[in-house]
Amino acid sequence: MDELIELLKEFDGIGQKAAKKMFFQIMTSKLKKQKLIEVIEKISNDYEICERCFFYKYKKLCSFCDSQIRDKNLICVVSDILNAEKILNSKFKGIIHVLNGEININKNVHPEKLKIEELFARINSEVEILLALNLTFEGEVTANYIATKLKDKAKNITRIARGIPLGGVLDYMDNETLEDAIKNRKIIKKG
Amino acid sequence: MDELIELLKEFDGIGQKAAKKMFFQIMTSKLKKQKLIEVIEKISNDYEICERCFFYKYKKLCSFCDSQIRDKNLICVVSDILNAEKILNSKFKGIIHVLNGEININKNVHPEKLKIEELFARINSEVEILLALNLTFEGEVTANYIATKLKDKAKNITRIARGIPLGGVLDYMDNETLEDAIKNRKIIKKG
Repeated sequence: MDELIELLKEFDGIGQKAAKKMFFQIMTSKLKKQKLIEVIEKISNDYEICERCFFYKYKKLCSFCDSQIRDKNLICVVSDILNAEKILNSKFKGIIHVLNGEININKNVHPEKLKIEELFARINSEVEILLALNLTFEGEVTANYIATKLKDKAKNITRIARGIPLGGVLDYMDNETLEDAIKNRKIIKKG
Repeated sequence: MDELIELLKEFDGIGQKAAKKMFFQIMTSKLKKQKLIEVIEKISNDYEICERCFFYKYKKLCSFCDSQIRDKNLICVVSDILNAEKILNSKFKGIIHVLNGEININKNVHPEKLKIEELFARINSEVEILLALNLTFEGEVTANYIATKLKDKAKNITRIARGIPLGGVLDYMDNETLEDAIKNRKIIKKG
């Protein structure tokens, strides 16, 4: 049993408790088990990775690459598919490029392990790159790496703005964020 | 996609994030998908619920009921299989009865929904019942219900002791626990 639970735990996002609960649910309900198998087969049959942007295709179509209305000269770079989903559901009207991670030398994630070469292959002087990587140390390192390498090759390279999130309390903000939020202040009424 | 994620979330223990992560892992790796299907089939084939104690059987054998060395006159009552597992791995040498829940009137869990009748059917005047239900409101209600119903029918009815857990800090203990821990104090050196 422990061995089977370990196998379930190999899935990122499934911890010890969740794996045990899944185990018992699969064991106790033939119906739940059958439905789970069907879901897995459906995912595996209907979805695949887009070989261009590394987002996913549903029934052979990528919501970004195969869109007729999206601006193909504005590429938003994100670290994973979950982030790409967030962008898809936002007002952003360009296309996407999923890196499949962020540079992390400590964890042995070097640029070659990411889809960075594939990003560079998509760039030309007409293209604006929006670096929407996480505002963490690894995200910043990755954004800087790409920005340095792409210098002069893209039309524009931009980074999502740092600021105070909706509902954010100044007390709890770090100074760098606060200073950026002040520097990037927006005029709401011109005197 | 949202529909498939909702189906994964029907599994207790799988939240929104975990379901999405599973989805993408199944989508991106045929190998992981195949291994998951195998694990599910193995669980479904090798494990089943024991119709006597409601713990599980592995290849038709229950670790409690089919044990030759366990004391069949000492039945530990727990609320779920995870708790039964903890008892199995402890020094306890009796057998088990899994209720599949605790009485919770607010959530419409009445005694009839639990394996309480099945417990009563196992009792005779030789049997000691150890109520190892959670020390929560629902656990106490369930323990009291069983104790009242079984009065005079079992040889002994006991409840796991309330006290301060290993590593527990007195500051953070509620008064009831502390008072019980004092009342149940153990002699470590007799004067």
